[in-house]
Amino acid sequence: MDLFTAIEQRHCYRGGFTPDLIPRDHLRQIVQAGLQAPSGCNAQTTTFVIVDDPARLAEIAAILDRKPVREARALIVCIAEHRPVYNGLSFAVEDCAAAVENILLALTGLGYASVWLDGVLRVNDHARKIRKILGVPETREVRILLPVGRPSEPVTAREKLPFEKRAWFNQYENLT
Amino acid sequence: MDLFTAIEQRHCYRGGFTPDLIPRDHLRQIVQAGLQAPSGCNAQTTTFVIVDDPARLAEIAAILDRKPVREARALIVCIAEHRPVYNGLSFAVEDCAAAVENILLALTGLGYASVWLDGVLRVNDHARKIRKILGVPETREVRILLPVGRPSEPVTAREKLPFEKRAWFNQYENLT
Repeated sequence: MDLFTAIEQRHCYRGGFTPDLIPRDHLRQIVQAGLQAPSGCNAQTTTFVIVDDPARLAEIAAILDRKPVREARALIVCIAEHRPVYNGLSFAVEDCAAAVENILLALTGLGYASVWLDGVLRVNDHARKIRKILGVPETREVRILLPVGRPSEPVTAREKLPFEKRAWFNQYENLT
Repeated sequence: MDLFTAIEQRHCYRGGFTPDLIPRDHLRQIVQAGLQAPSGCNAQTTTFVIVDDPARLAEIAAILDRKPVREARALIVCIAEHRPVYNGLSFAVEDCAAAVENILLALTGLGYASVWLDGVLRVNDHARKIRKILGVPETREVRILLPVGRPSEPVTAREKLPFEKRAWFNQYENLT
């Protein structure tokens, strides 16, 4: 798929998924796109667990009981390692987000859909529970979860502000 | 350009740029890719100033005196608005990083190169100085700066860990 088509067609998808299994070759290709994302000082602080075992998927869906998680054929669990890499600064959040964006584009390019689940992991102890199930060390944070599958419903765009409201040449335009 | 080719060919580039001007159509297309990135609760907290005025470019290069900034034909200044959008959480850093990744892929697809400048803005008051030059309100943060141009030197990949060291199926593999 063309790059700009993928960027345009990537939308957050909160619907259900078809029962089609996802070949591991596709899962590898999708996560590989995440590994190729930039990271602060090339520290590569983001790691991934790709869950495609039905029993394990069910365990996670029991914690995060939402339609795309229940029906996902795979979950990509994105794990951040917070550690200073430059002048006392950690770029773990940026690293993880850039990797996730590559992953979302890659899965869109292969005909899958997903939704970036993030804040919901940080309530009700969800992230810690998933961390324990997957054997992730305490020093790392389950930061973002991406349910993946072939969408069984239309994938629709959310409304976005036009260019003129968010970008300007040479001078910030204070709209407030 | 094919999506996966763009993902593979995007590298941080710290070299010089040719004197070729960048058409505004390209700059708009590149930043539009950033606007299409996802954001937490669709809050669209990232805004942009695209600097292509030579006098303004020189003002910023006087603050951040580095080769890609000095020789850039345009700078994309990425601005974050930190505000809670879900359960007291702000996703401004994630939003900005996802937008930047789309922008880096878009400019790669059009034959340009860039480098993600981030931590360097947060030392020596650099971000605040650039914020003032561009008229960005105090409530927003100049977070990431992307120098853009046609590379005048080879764009080379930095070494990355292989898949097996950063991703696993169904269970985290503790390598330490």
